[in-house]
Amino acid sequence: MTSTAPRHPFPEALRAQLQQRFGNRFQVGAEFRRQHAHTLSVISNQPPDAVVQPLSRDEVVDIVHLCSEHDVPMIPFGAGTSLEGHVNAPRGGLCIDMGLMRRIITVHAEDLDCVIEPGVTRKFLNENLRDSGLFFPIDPGADASLGGMVSTRASGTNAVRYGTMRDNVISLEAVLADGSVVRTGGRARKSSAGYDLARLLTGAEGTLGIVTEITLRLHGIPEAIAGGICPFPSVRAACDAAIVTIQSGLPVARIELLDALQVKACNAYSRLTMPEQPMLFLEFHGSDAGVAEQARRFGEIAAEFGAGAFQWTAKPEERSKLWQARHDVYWATRGLAPGLSSISTDVCVPISRLADCVEATQADIAATGLIAPIVGHVGDGNFHLGLMFDPEKAGENERVAAFLDRLIERALSMEGTCTGEHGIGQGKVKYMKREHGAATLAMMASIKHALDPRGLMNPGKILPMD
Amino acid sequence: MTSTAPRHPFPEALRAQLQQRFGNRFQVGAEFRRQHAHTLSVISNQPPDAVVQPLSRDEVVDIVHLCSEHDVPMIPFGAGTSLEGHVNAPRGGLCIDMGLMRRIITVHAEDLDCVIEPGVTRKFLNENLRDSGLFFPIDPGADASLGGMVSTRASGTNAVRYGTMRDNVISLEAVLADGSVVRTGGRARKSSAGYDLARLLTGAEGTLGIVTEITLRLHGIPEAIAGGICPFPSVRAACDAAIVTIQSGLPVARIELLDALQVKACNAYSRLTMPEQPMLFLEFHGSDAGVAEQARRFGEIAAEFGAGAFQWTAKPEERSKLWQARHDVYWATRGLAPGLSSISTDVCVPISRLADCVEATQADIAATGLIAPIVGHVGDGNFHLGLMFDPEKAGENERVAAFLDRLIERALSMEGTCTGEHGIGQGKVKYMKREHGAATLAMMASIKHALDPRGLMNPGKILPMD
Repeated sequence: MTSTAPRHPFPEALRAQLQQRFGNRFQVGAEFRRQHAHTLSVISNQPPDAVVQPLSRDEVVDIVHLCSEHDVPMIPFGAGTSLEGHVNAPRGGLCIDMGLMRRIITVHAEDLDCVIEPGVTRKFLNENLRDSGLFFPIDPGADASLGGMVSTRASGTNAVRYGTMRDNVISLEAVLADGSVVRTGGRARKSSAGYDLARLLTGAEGTLGIVTEITLRLHGIPEAIAGGICPFPSVRAACDAAIVTIQSGLPVARIELLDALQVKACNAYSRLTMPEQPMLFLEFHGSDAGVAEQARRFGEIAAEFGAGAFQWTAKPEERSKLWQARHDVYWATRGLAPGLSSISTDVCVPISRLADCVEATQADIAATGLIAPIVGHVGDGNFHLGLMFDPEKAGENERVAAFLDRLIERALSMEGTCTGEHGIGQGKVKYMKREHGAATLAMMASIKHALDPRGLMNPGKILPMD
Repeated sequence: MTSTAPRHPFPEALRAQLQQRFGNRFQVGAEFRRQHAHTLSVISNQPPDAVVQPLSRDEVVDIVHLCSEHDVPMIPFGAGTSLEGHVNAPRGGLCIDMGLMRRIITVHAEDLDCVIEPGVTRKFLNENLRDSGLFFPIDPGADASLGGMVSTRASGTNAVRYGTMRDNVISLEAVLADGSVVRTGGRARKSSAGYDLARLLTGAEGTLGIVTEITLRLHGIPEAIAGGICPFPSVRAACDAAIVTIQSGLPVARIELLDALQVKACNAYSRLTMPEQPMLFLEFHGSDAGVAEQARRFGEIAAEFGAGAFQWTAKPEERSKLWQARHDVYWATRGLAPGLSSISTDVCVPISRLADCVEATQADIAATGLIAPIVGHVGDGNFHLGLMFDPEKAGENERVAAFLDRLIERALSMEGTCTGEHGIGQGKVKYMKREHGAATLAMMASIKHALDPRGLMNPGKILPMD
């Protein structure tokens, strides 16, 4: 991907001002800049002109005023784990690395919430919450920053029970393009007091403002956790069992599909001996009696769909081994074809269409001659492909691009979305019109223009560059 | 409340066009217009100049184009059950009564969703869902239209388990001020594809567009439902028991506080013999074994806080009788002081501050000499006052207004909100700046101005009129 937008030189006056104000928290070295742009897929690395690391909301305000004066793009950066080029700087500009703003400001255990800075990562937060008996459930796999998770509207394996970032952000503080500081509300669990700005900023990928403080919902660490795996004769049987599980109100915490190729990859990478057929990985949260009942009821449902034995355990070490294998699918997939490049992509459809979508996609993978194991958050109708290919091979990039177009067309034709949780970034801008239509996209563009008339906030993400 | 904004005569040409196009679905009679404005509290009735009843999205588009040509305000109307003057027409204009758009378009049982028109009411929807084994849980008390519930971001007694409208709207279709039709997404359970326009329109009170189609999340009707009541020695003890219940992860479906005065009113109105002390009403959803376990665990928690016996039942008729009393608190409250006017208002605070807020409010009620029983959705930190007073008595309006100011100031000082579920309408516009601050309010105004530059969509609601 190359940008055709104008890229102006970084103003010398701004560089001097930032240098003086931020000292060694302002960097212009090439490698540092490269690491502050996209590094995780075949989307090209488009580094910013400079990187600054603020320590406070007030420093962010000053940075925004300075960039605004000099008409310089601002790209907020969390942990750099996003997958669609969200942190690239196609017009150059200043990367605002929030990594040093990583204070856990307050934990309100009685209210099941906490107030944190955006650079706090998911694992760091949970390590610090442990003594409170609470945890933050959203788990996108990578140890992402919470600011980044807010901005991409992240979710992950246990969204089926705990929701996505949309459901777990109580309120936000953000700095807008004009340098004003907004707070979207207090700590009340619900409010009907005006426009839902917290939800507008959640998933806005930094294009409307820079998140500087986050109030998050927390949950009690379950008394008991049980997990297990269950093989199915087909992807369809596994999806049908998942549908009935959800419909029956079973409060499953995780229900993940791996197709046969993904199981094979996991066996090889994680030294497991699972039967190489479609598999559901499950986790149940509750009381000791509760998780046992949930596991029993799931086993009965699975049996109706021809599943093999449902093996489950409440022992932490056995559970962890299984879920580690699930979390390592990215590396397991790469192990299938060492030396090739990989793309991780996701789509999401209504759960009733999931089996159709996965089966048609598997057929397309076979017909196209690609290596692409599938893993899905089936309780949400969301699935991922790890797509391995050789970008140097003649025609390969075009073949992959055409396959991705078909995948997204298929999901949209089933009333789904081009991304359930990875976000639009740069990689999926081209699908926005097809998904939303011209009028809805114009509504998004109106909002963007009203709040950032000069297009300085993370340009080229979600909406095309002017 | 009186409006100082200009009120232009309704254009004769528009009247003729609407008359011709809509026949007897276009009305200008005084009584019909009065019924299509605010009727439920002391907020004055400000009728529109005319009322039209569209049958389809395309008719709404035509109406919006016509009003726009003639620069005439548009006020969407559902069932007229809102409490803060949302349906008043302070600048005159056309009421768009969505009541005839009441089709249930599709129920997707496997996906636990349905697609409906906005005039469908909550009870009508649930009656029509019964055979599917599904239900729509949000219950604000009144038989509101779903379009109105979307627009006020309604919730109610079982939001503690099922969330609010924010959590249960999957996507929306809406007609914007320029007549364009937007769709905020498909039917996927989650999406990261751009700005969350569904959440922006939910709670926008018709000020950004007119909702013409709603895709809602549904839930399985629980296998078993149990309910009961539990008396406490004090409001604080009841709130503390509620906090521990929520913290322990007990998936209570409803947990409602009634203060002693409210219990007295309910006893009188519903012919019950509850002890006249603070009381929690509870409901549990789950399997037979599950609800029994939940009730047992709640009983243990309640006992730690000095509660009297927790009496519960899974028998539908006994449960219904109790919950009918809860739903009839509005009438029970009016029965406390026949002939007086009443205001129903709500605030919401973090649950840890709920007892403080309720106790301070009770003291203020006593000091001010008002009659105002309290009922609260304590799982959410949300409580209501039914405030009885005589608007004809000298100084009474000022006394009530000052009391309401103190109530909201108190909630805001505890990191709460001026409304948990009733919305802003006209009644709480004056508190928006205090709650959100100038910068956040300016952000809301920017969005409003970008999408409705001439301020024709439900003027005077949420934001002050220009």
